[in-house]
Amino acid sequence: MNNVIDFIQVNRDRYLDELKALLAIPSISALPEHTGDVRRCAEWCGDEMGRIGLQNVELIETPGNPVVYGDWLGAPGAPTILFYGHYDVQPVDPLNLWESPPFEATIRDGEIFARGSADDKGQVFMHLKAIEAHLKQNGRLPVNMKLILEGEEEVGSANLDDFIRANKSRLAADVVVISDSAMFARGVPSICYGLRGLVYFQVDLRGSSTDLHSGSFGGALANPAFVLAQMIAQMKDRSGRIRIPGFYDDVRELTAEERAAWASLPFNEKTYRKDFGIPKLAGETGYTTLERTWARPTLEVNGLLSGFTGEGAKTVLPAVSMAKISMRLVPDQDPNKIADLFQKYVEENAPKTVEVKVTRMHGGKPWMTSFDNPFVQAAGRAIEKGFGRAPIFTREGGSIPVVSTFQEELGLPSVLFGVGLPDENAHAPNEKLDVGNFHNGIIASAILYDEVSRLKV
Amino acid sequence: MNNVIDFIQVNRDRYLDELKALLAIPSISALPEHTGDVRRCAEWCGDEMGRIGLQNVELIETPGNPVVYGDWLGAPGAPTILFYGHYDVQPVDPLNLWESPPFEATIRDGEIFARGSADDKGQVFMHLKAIEAHLKQNGRLPVNMKLILEGEEEVGSANLDDFIRANKSRLAADVVVISDSAMFARGVPSICYGLRGLVYFQVDLRGSSTDLHSGSFGGALANPAFVLAQMIAQMKDRSGRIRIPGFYDDVRELTAEERAAWASLPFNEKTYRKDFGIPKLAGETGYTTLERTWARPTLEVNGLLSGFTGEGAKTVLPAVSMAKISMRLVPDQDPNKIADLFQKYVEENAPKTVEVKVTRMHGGKPWMTSFDNPFVQAAGRAIEKGFGRAPIFTREGGSIPVVSTFQEELGLPSVLFGVGLPDENAHAPNEKLDVGNFHNGIIASAILYDEVSRLKV
Repeated sequence: MNNVIDFIQVNRDRYLDELKALLAIPSISALPEHTGDVRRCAEWCGDEMGRIGLQNVELIETPGNPVVYGDWLGAPGAPTILFYGHYDVQPVDPLNLWESPPFEATIRDGEIFARGSADDKGQVFMHLKAIEAHLKQNGRLPVNMKLILEGEEEVGSANLDDFIRANKSRLAADVVVISDSAMFARGVPSICYGLRGLVYFQVDLRGSSTDLHSGSFGGALANPAFVLAQMIAQMKDRSGRIRIPGFYDDVRELTAEERAAWASLPFNEKTYRKDFGIPKLAGETGYTTLERTWARPTLEVNGLLSGFTGEGAKTVLPAVSMAKISMRLVPDQDPNKIADLFQKYVEENAPKTVEVKVTRMHGGKPWMTSFDNPFVQAAGRAIEKGFGRAPIFTREGGSIPVVSTFQEELGLPSVLFGVGLPDENAHAPNEKLDVGNFHNGIIASAILYDEVSRLKV
Repeated sequence: MNNVIDFIQVNRDRYLDELKALLAIPSISALPEHTGDVRRCAEWCGDEMGRIGLQNVELIETPGNPVVYGDWLGAPGAPTILFYGHYDVQPVDPLNLWESPPFEATIRDGEIFARGSADDKGQVFMHLKAIEAHLKQNGRLPVNMKLILEGEEEVGSANLDDFIRANKSRLAADVVVISDSAMFARGVPSICYGLRGLVYFQVDLRGSSTDLHSGSFGGALANPAFVLAQMIAQMKDRSGRIRIPGFYDDVRELTAEERAAWASLPFNEKTYRKDFGIPKLAGETGYTTLERTWARPTLEVNGLLSGFTGEGAKTVLPAVSMAKISMRLVPDQDPNKIADLFQKYVEENAPKTVEVKVTRMHGGKPWMTSFDNPFVQAAGRAIEKGFGRAPIFTREGGSIPVVSTFQEELGLPSVLFGVGLPDENAHAPNEKLDVGNFHNGIIASAILYDEVSRLKV
């Protein structure tokens, strides 16, 4: 392994230059005007896979954006890793809050700032460079590898499940490796063994056929912005519990062991609060902040829009109002069941003074694995060697729905091998990736393949 | 008078062409990028005043947009009318809902569609054409007239009160005439004797320094969009009563006579509901729709904005949320007192989990006159002759704050001589003015000056 690690050390600066080229492609899957950029990014990734020595590289078409596939299968008898990542990125609005342009990667204070730097291009590229180092130095990998890079992760992976189901034998492997999450804290590498699921909705209300003058009409009819506020406010009680009937029925309670382990983690609420400019933490009564974000379901308003929102004053009684509302789910909640409950709740609780339309966007199942899984333990050793510190074992509040699909369709465990940071601004302005973590992550990835090669499969 | 009315009949088509030129100027006072258009509109109005024979025409500068002044004072001993109108218009968003461009006036089905057609350019122009007809045919007006056209009515008339106070002798008159309101219904001309007042606020909440990932952070902190919904929902109870302490203290109750008179007006709730596409009327318990809009105070959400509002799904936990909230006031509520109550209520009820900022925008006092006032009665006779039908006496839910200023600063009664229609879309897409009402309004205005000239002052 030493020659591989030496290669990675020597090429450190080149990796950053190459990553900048990848980050320059605005592959925003949520915005139709970027469809061409998304494809260009897929092509870039395929070209790069070929360049580093992967084989059978192919852009596999789906009804949406293509999946980039590549493999190296020259280690018969050794385990096979299926690597999953995504090459699409989140939108960048509000653009004016970015300190440097989102698609001109800029290094400041040891961080590389760009949309996609952490989520997920930087972490995908880390593996490509680890693979390259093995192949350049040794002409081979210690394991078999299959890579799939998706272009629709940020819009709910609508075509990924079908893709996996349609390619079961092609994707056959022993373990899935995903690097699309953050470590626990700066300097505290971690392995994640649980994720929350998601259901996402848009709720539209209409109170009149057109905007009306709030003087002439105000008082005579329901204001859809006010009704929306009422409906949203009713969704949680004062203790932060979600009021949708049946919502908590399938929630797996935290074990005493988990609560004790998490209580001992180096988590400082005051620092967390200060880091993110939060006046006062708040959440479901009876749970700590880590418990609230890792193991409890939530209901969040992701967006609100109604009436006049420009500068100044417009005395309009809005015709319509809109909210984006999503719920994070925990084991063993089922997204379809929760989505049904939410839709029924909203439709039944909307007053007759408005027309209501509930649109189901995307969703994903929550996931948990056991942390004595040998692949998880191998990942722990790789992290320890790459970062010089043993990882801690955590859960994560975000969602990677594909993890459940890999379990169900391919029977594969997943290892979440993430090197982002909690303040990486993954879905916000000024997304960033720590340059040192990127570098150590390449080394840890290279070691991971070696560690996995020693496991019996 | 007959020669004046003949002139108006003959020139009917020319008036529409000229009005289209005025409506083509996008004098949107709320948007800084239209400052030049606002001034261009003032200049257009001044030029037109000179063209029709008014004297002492001047653009009088204010700290904001200029007031256009013109007069004709050649009737010593006769009463003096001070005409007030405004040449600025509302913004046009959402632009995609306009069936024809807002600044290309288009006549369809006997209506002239354009921003400002009813509010207030069309109604101002009606008087300019009535004045023109008198001066062209007789070389004189039956009364003295002073006209002031304001350019900041749609943004709260911030500089008008100071202007009036600074020009008391120049504006000395016997009565104020304002045409900036709607008649009761199509074919039912009316004189308005009461208006609601207004206070308008922007409320901004912040829950974190930047937008956060709703997965990683959801559940750990207050969501400012959710908190905003809670705060708004709490502002009214289930019966539609506003919960701000002291809000109703100075509300003058409706008299039994008013309630009886209004109950006999030709108002059909079902038609009203259908005309404006309202699923179900709703408002304060114990009052009819007319009472709710004419004589009861309201609290309305005029705009909401938070987080991601584009197409699709973005899993963001918004850093900030914003609401535009206004209250319509009735006699004898005082805007400053109500604004203080609202601000105190919001600041005291905001949870410590968010930073709250309350910005007071503009406001205006409610107003009422008696309908046996001789000027009001003269206006009634003019309407009857112009429209062929005696007017009914109504109140109106909108606000014309300057009416109170004229009363207080100049001691003048106001006559609200409006020929718009309730469905004119004054602050909404597809604003329109009925061509027949515009034409009859010119005749009625010309007769109004004659009727006023017969009054002793």
